Amino acid sequence: MKLLIELSYVGTNYCGYQVQQNGDTIQQRLNEAALSLFGFPCDVSGCSRTDSGVHARTYFATVCRKDTQNLECSIPLFRIPMAFNAHLPDDIAVRRALYVDSSFHPRYDVRSKTYRYRMLLKREREPFLAPYCWHVPYPTLPDAEQRMDRAAGLFCGKRDFSTFMAKGSKIEDPVRTVLSSRVFREDCELIFEICADGFLYHMVRIMAGTLIEVACGRMEPQSMTSLMEARDRELAGPTAPPCGLTLWDVQYGSPT
Amino acid sequence: MKLLIELSYVGTNYCGYQVQQNGDTIQQRLNEAALSLFGFPCDVSGCSRTDSGVHARTYFATVCRKDTQNLECSIPLFRIPMAFNAHLPDDIAVRRALYVDSSFHPRYDVRSKTYRYRMLLKREREPFLAPYCWHVPYPTLPDAEQRMDRAAGLFCGKRDFSTFMAKGSKIEDPVRTVLSSRVFREDCELIFEICADGFLYHMVRIMAGTLIEVACGRMEPQSMTSLMEARDRELAGPTAPPCGLTLWDVQYGSPT
Repeated sequence: MKLLIELSYVGTNYCGYQVQQNGDTIQQRLNEAALSLFGFPCDVSGCSRTDSGVHARTYFATVCRKDTQNLECSIPLFRIPMAFNAHLPDDIAVRRALYVDSSFHPRYDVRSKTYRYRMLLKREREPFLAPYCWHVPYPTLPDAEQRMDRAAGLFCGKRDFSTFMAKGSKIEDPVRTVLSSRVFREDCELIFEICADGFLYHMVRIMAGTLIEVACGRMEPQSMTSLMEARDRELAGPTAPPCGLTLWDVQYGSPT
Repeated sequence: MKLLIELSYVGTNYCGYQVQQNGDTIQQRLNEAALSLFGFPCDVSGCSRTDSGVHARTYFATVCRKDTQNLECSIPLFRIPMAFNAHLPDDIAVRRALYVDSSFHPRYDVRSKTYRYRMLLKREREPFLAPYCWHVPYPTLPDAEQRMDRAAGLFCGKRDFSTFMAKGSKIEDPVRTVLSSRVFREDCELIFEICADGFLYHMVRIMAGTLIEVACGRMEPQSMTSLMEARDRELAGPTAPPCGLTLWDVQYGSPT
């Protein structure tokens, strides 16, 4: 058995999820919290390698003893979140804990993930939203929302997404299946929501940057199809900043 | 003439509004932005001395030349906010600018100010709200919201608020007039909103700390009256943390 924890975090102050030599990471904080809580070194394994500055509303990680790769603890499951949180900073929260089979892998067993990219399309700044949104102060077309939603819809399907992959990524197979993709308004924000069986490096951020080109009229919604066929990163828009990106949901095959 | 600017800021990264020797402040940033924008040293004078870590949704400051105490500039008024913001970090935003008479004082001419104190009364953390809310994870009574609102209502009126003033404050007259005071729910937050002609040092934060005592049943709503009559800081609740406090609105006598 392993412990599966569900968490949320604000990525602003971290160099991404995965442990690295220079810089504070979510995984490092979880490792330290697990050691303090259980009293022995643990392996914490996450569902995704979120980039520096990217947030997660929903994130899953497994926790097990480093030596036995197993974990059953005496703390009742419902107490685990509070116990973990006592050893974590305010910008990371464990929400739930349950036991899963030792064969469960939080990353390889993911069936699909949903990301949201939040954008603020207006001249005025919103300091309270700044940590979570990309502020786009330059003019966009009056029907920007409809144009972006039309363009986003064209990302759906099983395709080669090389156009939306950061240059220099070492991925053998750039084919992914996008299950849903849309743009909608929530208060003063425009939200790009995309669900897929997997994502290439910087894929959502490059798509968001491209949608803003569509919003400004520098690209047409229907050009997304030829853009993807070209498999050329140069033709897509810029990579949108990490602050706007949130891992929104993670779907596992049943049973979890 | 002087320039009056309306702004918003997130106080998390600042040691309050007012310039001080050790630490970054909002006023310091505005001074620097004004110098960059106009090319001469300016006096920036604010409507309130918000504490370290306190936010402002609405804040007013006047800007004038240091030497002449006047300012009329060649930039059209509607361009001033964008021009200022180009010299300010993302957590400070100038929203509007207008000219006011040289005799106008952004602090002494305030008729009333409204503060909001945001609280999250549940076990679970909310990392995305953490910068703006006080998280109260311990148990409160089922009718906490109604109890807090009843207690808050008793703050209304012209009274000596010494009970809700930080010890050691050098205030000659601790009498203030509270024009409205209530607690209401907004999504998962409870909000304490208070409007008064002036506030004593830490007044809203001590009131918020006291309302949480009422929420937990350690104090009764109706005890607020005797609490205020006692004029004893020791009898009130703890000082709530600054992150939950936002200067929400500032009312001037007409015409502004």
